[in-house]
Amino acid sequence: MSLAGGLPGSEFYPVDAVRSATGRALDRWGAQALEYGPVEGFPALRASIAKRIAAANDAPVGIDNVLLTAGAMQGLDLLGKTLIDPGDLIVAQFPTYLGALDAWRPRNPSYAKLDWQLDRPGLDDVLSDAKFVYAVPNFSNPTGVLVPTEHRKALLSKVHAAGTWLVEDDPYLPLQIDGSAGPSILALDAASRLGNVYDGPVVYLGTLSKSIAPGFRVGWVVAEPRLIETLALAKQSTDLSSSMFAQAVALELIESDIEATHVPMMVRHYRERRDALCASAARHLSEWFSWDVPPGGMFVWLRATNPAIDTNQLYTFALEEKVAFVPSSVFDPAGELRDAMRLNFTRSTPDMLDEGIRRLARAVRRYLASSAPDRGTC
Amino acid sequence: MSLAGGLPGSEFYPVDAVRSATGRALDRWGAQALEYGPVEGFPALRASIAKRIAAANDAPVGIDNVLLTAGAMQGLDLLGKTLIDPGDLIVAQFPTYLGALDAWRPRNPSYAKLDWQLDRPGLDDVLSDAKFVYAVPNFSNPTGVLVPTEHRKALLSKVHAAGTWLVEDDPYLPLQIDGSAGPSILALDAASRLGNVYDGPVVYLGTLSKSIAPGFRVGWVVAEPRLIETLALAKQSTDLSSSMFAQAVALELIESDIEATHVPMMVRHYRERRDALCASAARHLSEWFSWDVPPGGMFVWLRATNPAIDTNQLYTFALEEKVAFVPSSVFDPAGELRDAMRLNFTRSTPDMLDEGIRRLARAVRRYLASSAPDRGTC
Repeated sequence: MSLAGGLPGSEFYPVDAVRSATGRALDRWGAQALEYGPVEGFPALRASIAKRIAAANDAPVGIDNVLLTAGAMQGLDLLGKTLIDPGDLIVAQFPTYLGALDAWRPRNPSYAKLDWQLDRPGLDDVLSDAKFVYAVPNFSNPTGVLVPTEHRKALLSKVHAAGTWLVEDDPYLPLQIDGSAGPSILALDAASRLGNVYDGPVVYLGTLSKSIAPGFRVGWVVAEPRLIETLALAKQSTDLSSSMFAQAVALELIESDIEATHVPMMVRHYRERRDALCASAARHLSEWFSWDVPPGGMFVWLRATNPAIDTNQLYTFALEEKVAFVPSSVFDPAGELRDAMRLNFTRSTPDMLDEGIRRLARAVRRYLASSAPDRGTC
Repeated sequence: MSLAGGLPGSEFYPVDAVRSATGRALDRWGAQALEYGPVEGFPALRASIAKRIAAANDAPVGIDNVLLTAGAMQGLDLLGKTLIDPGDLIVAQFPTYLGALDAWRPRNPSYAKLDWQLDRPGLDDVLSDAKFVYAVPNFSNPTGVLVPTEHRKALLSKVHAAGTWLVEDDPYLPLQIDGSAGPSILALDAASRLGNVYDGPVVYLGTLSKSIAPGFRVGWVVAEPRLIETLALAKQSTDLSSSMFAQAVALELIESDIEATHVPMMVRHYRERRDALCASAARHLSEWFSWDVPPGGMFVWLRATNPAIDTNQLYTFALEEKVAFVPSSVFDPAGELRDAMRLNFTRSTPDMLDEGIRRLARAVRRYLASSAPDRGTC
């Protein structure tokens, strides 16, 4: 029983819609859908994504602002190849998804933590030294937090003052369980700009992995056109182009507006799962942990209220009870964050989540008993 | 009119077979075909490719020897990330496909030329200093040459003596126009090994791009298992996994044995096109160029017999006649190779090829007239 993964509920993947979308894509594009692609992406999908981002953010995003990538992960990899020189400083939201940081490890950057305490002394100097800031303002992995609009605005203004890039990673945008996500930092920046093409410092990443299915590997980078050109050159020497077949099918799915019905259905199930996990945690874990109910995304972040708990140590006991979670140390480049854990709620049914939480509670009890001072030998 | 590209004839892409293969893949795998994949590749396709490589090479290649990649290009990129430190020496077949070298440019390697004169003095020392050797023995791009078996054996033995890796890139294997390709160096090495798993120094790259269609981006690296593990880690931080959807459809195409009918049909057309290009060249270009009829692949390599011809200069005149080719300088890391050009025959019909060659002949004539000494001013 794993609450550790970061996967969507695969029972919601739209298999039948993919079947008919493939037929339409091959009727419409024929051999073009089986060809090497332009490195920037299948042109019609690229235009469609540009239009979608422009509309969602009321921003002047055109086709030259968009690079299609093999999932948002490839966007992170290409940004590393393009922007990071060895020793460069990255200011990254903390705690943050280490998959992103994995992508940049080959470039050997150093990291500073962005904890959204934007008025703390010295932050301006750190930002001035940084190659870029990395933030996940919507339902961040691992904490599920929704960053308030004021903090987004404050960060943007500091990024402008520092003259650095801001990489805004937005994979969880579709998973709005309680009301809407915040305005993207891209949208906040675009609102103050003139012209028909976005030319600001925000580099915005998105994906179809959470709204439709991960198996297409369709993601995108939105940025000012010169950076898009540079990223495209880096992509050329990485894989020549992404799968035109997968992109042509993805285009049909988007154009059929499948997300309008599919995403609300999926989010309804995710809400039920999140609530089941939190209710079970309230029954079985509240003695030792506290948490905020996440307004979206895929994860609940449990912080230990009992200072004796080290989630790295707890992990061993959890495995003995046949349940897995992700300990907080994994989300800290220094590995020092030991008092929390990430639980995923999208991949399991309410019953499975309840069983997982019961096992976790047994693991906590056994862990605390084993680490209590042994009074017999005093 | 372009004879410059390196694309297959897209009119042969099996659109209808892809349509039915997609239906079968979704029936068989359901949501699994839309999931994130294991980074090493869709397991059933990985097993199928391992079996195919084992059978074709009579080699002990198992699933642990195989990493599926986004085209063979991603294999080259991952090898660069994994094997090359800045300043490392690569010994590369000359002239060679610069797309491969592009993949490694971010790692700043230096290059030595491998011209298959394997008895020249100093070569052993160069090989001992090299991180790896890069060779395309079957119908190499750009020359179309089929490297003789004795040269393959001699290179393998030198690679063993030097203790280096040998990267054997084999994208053109299916395009056997006149008889069969040579034994792969992987097969030559495997023949002398014991055990159930290949553990030698050959790293073998292949792709479905030339035998079925490029739009799936399905390629593979075959190597000893520890290197496969290291390459998989590098792939994880590059794109998490390749498209499961594209891989599941590719598996159905392979299992339906489409290549058994599709490849011979396609090669028959390519033979006709190659012969048309060579016949037209014999009529219109033999005054200034010579060439070997390539026994396979996609290209004819024309060498100038007239020492006044610089194909970089000729290129401008060709564009004025509305025909494009690739000048030889592009296939030389030093850019010094100026006496040859690469013509593609797979993408154009016989009539188009004849028209292209006629235009090229006009371009040569105008170029030589313009560069002849002006007798009027002597």
